[in-house]
Amino acid sequence: MIATEKIRIAIAGYGNLGIGVEAGIMQNPDMELIAVFTRRVPESIKIRTQNVPVCRFSDMTEWAGKVDVMILCGGSATDLIWQVPHAAQFFNTVDSFDTHAKIPWFYSAVNEASSSSGHTSIISVGWDPGMFSIARVYSNCILPSGKDYTFWGPGVSQGHSDAIRRISGVVDARQYTIPVDSSVKSVRNGDNPELTVGQKHTRLCYVVAEENADLLRIEKEIKEMPDYFKEYETTIKFISKDDLEKNHSELPHGGFVIRSGVTGRDGKHKQIIEYSLKLESNPGFTANVLLAYARAAYRLSCRSEYGAKTVFDIPPALLSPLPGTELIKRFL
Amino acid sequence: MIATEKIRIAIAGYGNLGIGVEAGIMQNPDMELIAVFTRRVPESIKIRTQNVPVCRFSDMTEWAGKVDVMILCGGSATDLIWQVPHAAQFFNTVDSFDTHAKIPWFYSAVNEASSSSGHTSIISVGWDPGMFSIARVYSNCILPSGKDYTFWGPGVSQGHSDAIRRISGVVDARQYTIPVDSSVKSVRNGDNPELTVGQKHTRLCYVVAEENADLLRIEKEIKEMPDYFKEYETTIKFISKDDLEKNHSELPHGGFVIRSGVTGRDGKHKQIIEYSLKLESNPGFTANVLLAYARAAYRLSCRSEYGAKTVFDIPPALLSPLPGTELIKRFL
Repeated sequence: MIATEKIRIAIAGYGNLGIGVEAGIMQNPDMELIAVFTRRVPESIKIRTQNVPVCRFSDMTEWAGKVDVMILCGGSATDLIWQVPHAAQFFNTVDSFDTHAKIPWFYSAVNEASSSSGHTSIISVGWDPGMFSIARVYSNCILPSGKDYTFWGPGVSQGHSDAIRRISGVVDARQYTIPVDSSVKSVRNGDNPELTVGQKHTRLCYVVAEENADLLRIEKEIKEMPDYFKEYETTIKFISKDDLEKNHSELPHGGFVIRSGVTGRDGKHKQIIEYSLKLESNPGFTANVLLAYARAAYRLSCRSEYGAKTVFDIPPALLSPLPGTELIKRFL
Repeated sequence: MIATEKIRIAIAGYGNLGIGVEAGIMQNPDMELIAVFTRRVPESIKIRTQNVPVCRFSDMTEWAGKVDVMILCGGSATDLIWQVPHAAQFFNTVDSFDTHAKIPWFYSAVNEASSSSGHTSIISVGWDPGMFSIARVYSNCILPSGKDYTFWGPGVSQGHSDAIRRISGVVDARQYTIPVDSSVKSVRNGDNPELTVGQKHTRLCYVVAEENADLLRIEKEIKEMPDYFKEYETTIKFISKDDLEKNHSELPHGGFVIRSGVTGRDGKHKQIIEYSLKLESNPGFTANVLLAYARAAYRLSCRSEYGAKTVFDIPPALLSPLPGTELIKRFL
């Protein structure tokens, strides 16, 4: 292999996702980690890669020109919403912004920053939004006549776990979203059922309560929480803190995107497309998707294709370290 | 909806695939069928669409400038291999060329024709090569450390059916490729098994023999045919011509592309990506994939992006009739 310059990646935010990106870089020989940025005290953070500096988030702009792609690994609500439009003034960026209702606004804000500064930003990258979104677009284009279904899980929903944690008397919690097997089967069978949210998923909650807490009240509060639990069959299990840490410390997730359609005169043939993920680590997988799109962002910026993009704008070939001829040989 | 000009599609070759493309155009309101080309006697062909001419294949070049995309629907071995390089001198083209070993040569031949004449050609479009190839590229980019598996079926393999038909004493045959359930389960489970071809698929053959044919000899010849059957557990059932026509006239197919990989420090988390198809009609589905890529070919040609492309070069957004803002809203 000819020695070429590696893509210089920086990570902003060193939580589960940032740690996942760091590990993912090891699997991509054409990339190297150049810096980690944090809003915590840099000295308090011990990263796994040797000889890579941990820097203050506020010093990020000093790195302009020294980083090929800045991967922003914060949360959508309070971090990415301002960090990406900020960082896109100085760097090519990739992020996993997933607050669906705000994506159009976010796209515009990032696009303005990256277009005017001559950078490329790929927004809302991950698995949903991300790979699941891509699956929906491909399958809708192929089967214009059909019906879409997305099932999530089995896996940990951090939003639902957080919602339980906010209840008074709760020390910690872990919520698993579980697709309803009979509904998945019916969809796979091409029955095209109409399903309520509660017919698609059930919710299983492991809750650590304070000593002497009113468990019945906590259970009631969870089960009656609108949007999060009220519409679902919800099971609550009170467990010890030890049990939670020992048996529920991982963040598995996944799901299925299914389009069930028809082709042919009078729609006589059923056709079913399914894209599914079974992930032992949600942040580990998301991190690797971010890295593939970091490669694409870097290449687009080299071709002066600036501005904000989504996964829909990126051809598969741009994600791969292999040349086109090799992709044809190995994968076509 | 604002009235705009439709994409003018022509079909070359009116077999199962061409008929599928014709039906698919009805599902895509931004397209219209403008002509059908055939090497049979045009008057002998009755197409389903009204007021569309059926023309001689040899008159195709007279239609240059009147067709936006020519969809070539012949077989790979004897039709597409020369038809596409020929047609690409006069039209944007889309084809489903699937002779894997010859794709690099085919790509060059088509690229030369389309580049020099100012057209866009997307080659080897369908589901394998096609959507399965795309699934392999995405999942390899996301999981650089992992193992690929492709299972085909349950479905009719036309190549294997043809191979049986060539045996003396055989009137007709239909061969179903069936994935081995226990192997699929093991792969989905992340076991990463090493599988021989025979451990991945079995073959089920329905054979109509001539009266008084030596059935034992036919059975032996099928089972011992190298590459096609010898390496597989093969079941042969002799049936009547009526039975074959009544119960085996459809062309279902499908399969699974699975990548089983790991992420994280020391590869501690298993991650499984699966793309699967369950198709009641192989040609009906392939036809609709061709149409989505016809839209992309037309758009690329409007932007003067000429030459041969593969599915790897096409961003998902280019396949959709919807504008980018709408894709973000509906599918991201």
